[in-house]
Amino acid sequence: MDSSNIARCAQLAMILEVSATPKPGNIDRDHNYSGTRFEHFLASAVGVYPVMEKAAGSGSGVGALIRGSVLESSKWQKGGNTHFGAFILLVPLVMAAGKCEDRTCLLSQVKKIVRETSSEDAIEFFRAFSEAKVKVKQVTDLDLNDQSSIKKIEAHRLTLFKMMEISGSYDIIAAEWINGFEKTFDCAISIQNKIRKYCINDAVVLTFMELLSQNKDTFIQTKFDRKKAEEVSLMAKKILEKGDIDDVRDEICLFDEKLLKEGVNPGSTADIIIAGLFVSLFEGMRF
Amino acid sequence: MDSSNIARCAQLAMILEVSATPKPGNIDRDHNYSGTRFEHFLASAVGVYPVMEKAAGSGSGVGALIRGSVLESSKWQKGGNTHFGAFILLVPLVMAAGKCEDRTCLLSQVKKIVRETSSEDAIEFFRAFSEAKVKVKQVTDLDLNDQSSIKKIEAHRLTLFKMMEISGSYDIIAAEWINGFEKTFDCAISIQNKIRKYCINDAVVLTFMELLSQNKDTFIQTKFDRKKAEEVSLMAKKILEKGDIDDVRDEICLFDEKLLKEGVNPGSTADIIIAGLFVSLFEGMRF
Repeated sequence: MDSSNIARCAQLAMILEVSATPKPGNIDRDHNYSGTRFEHFLASAVGVYPVMEKAAGSGSGVGALIRGSVLESSKWQKGGNTHFGAFILLVPLVMAAGKCEDRTCLLSQVKKIVRETSSEDAIEFFRAFSEAKVKVKQVTDLDLNDQSSIKKIEAHRLTLFKMMEISGSYDIIAAEWINGFEKTFDCAISIQNKIRKYCINDAVVLTFMELLSQNKDTFIQTKFDRKKAEEVSLMAKKILEKGDIDDVRDEICLFDEKLLKEGVNPGSTADIIIAGLFVSLFEGMRF
Repeated sequence: MDSSNIARCAQLAMILEVSATPKPGNIDRDHNYSGTRFEHFLASAVGVYPVMEKAAGSGSGVGALIRGSVLESSKWQKGGNTHFGAFILLVPLVMAAGKCEDRTCLLSQVKKIVRETSSEDAIEFFRAFSEAKVKVKQVTDLDLNDQSSIKKIEAHRLTLFKMMEISGSYDIIAAEWINGFEKTFDCAISIQNKIRKYCINDAVVLTFMELLSQNKDTFIQTKFDRKKAEEVSLMAKKILEKGDIDDVRDEICLFDEKLLKEGVNPGSTADIIIAGLFVSLFEGMRF
């Protein structure tokens, strides 16, 4: 697949994810946060095209490409951080896609790309973090706005992969890097199976609910705590057990309203859905 | 502005238009037709990137680029014709944008580009028409699926501009070509004025309602008749006279439900909104 096709798959993955509704707690076509709206996500997804095209083509440097995505996104919308977590997954996937034609290759290439990241990638990622103003858990003695942290990265030759290893125990996005994008590819399989029976919106909503029921969302855990994230997963699980989407759509909507009211947004789950949609579109899924 | 920026402005214009809701009678984020859904418009908008980039850069041949857009759109979605009318306006605007930095230049360039179209453009346009399966009024003795019509175009040296002149009396899209994209630029001014007070969604909805109230929609006129198109415009006018968007949002929703129920979709009005959004984004509008 050529670079332009791959970049458009990345754009469309972000656009389909944010459009899918009801997607409990998150921004979707029917729900905005104050300050960040549905349209900010659309503009961000459109805006990052050239960085994704570069990643799929001659581009190298995972950290610089993630940072480039954050900067390009912010040129196209004023809603703040929209896709930081998604870029962490999309950039290596898009780079791998540029070298591949099928899933087996994509899987082995993306593993290779993340393992081969350098401390230069870690530094660029660090800079992108503060530029994107992301909420993160402080686990190391690295301060994200601290110039001396960059020196520490250099001194310890801390690669971006190593940083993800440190966060991987509690961060489902970082864990994707460590575990060979396992959930991403599971998502892709789930979406492609579901689209045989459901419209694209419902295929995404159901896969989102399943993923949420099976994993504590990192964004919730960071903003609230582990218990809250577990509670939310259990609620998603209970709803899914009650029946097919048309039987539980109203319950998903109530769940959505509840989470939105409490400010509980499973943003990391949404990021993995984007990665899964990207893999599906790369594999030729159309609707 | 470089070609990639211009192509992304075109993508985002199409995406913002179809997302805006409530947009009476048309597909929006909350309304689908049977067979054509919101997501088909999103995928089409994403898909046409390379044709728009080409149009903004080294591309020439308005007819071939419109046809290229139709073909590329259909590779990314299975919902049928989504953006044919929009491409008729976007392609010359995007070509002009590639040569310009401001509105004055854009206006004079786009006029020049449409006036200089050839009969080769007319033939390519003809082919795109049948490929897109567009509903059209039969005004000339040209049959859109007729090979002999192509010979007639060649024999009479009928340019694409001349074809638009023939349709311009009843077709608001064709009329844009003839009248120097007057409504497109009015739309752009309206959207940019409204975004100072309203969110992007409401700026688009209000401009759509105003445009609809002022012009009989060609798509309605073709599908139904002149009287129906006049009725719809009058209804839009009466709603707007009642107050600001928050006062009349419920009435716009009822109007929307009524038109959807009757199968009345002001598709041509939507196409001009896309063109107006494109000009606004080209001029640097962000939100």
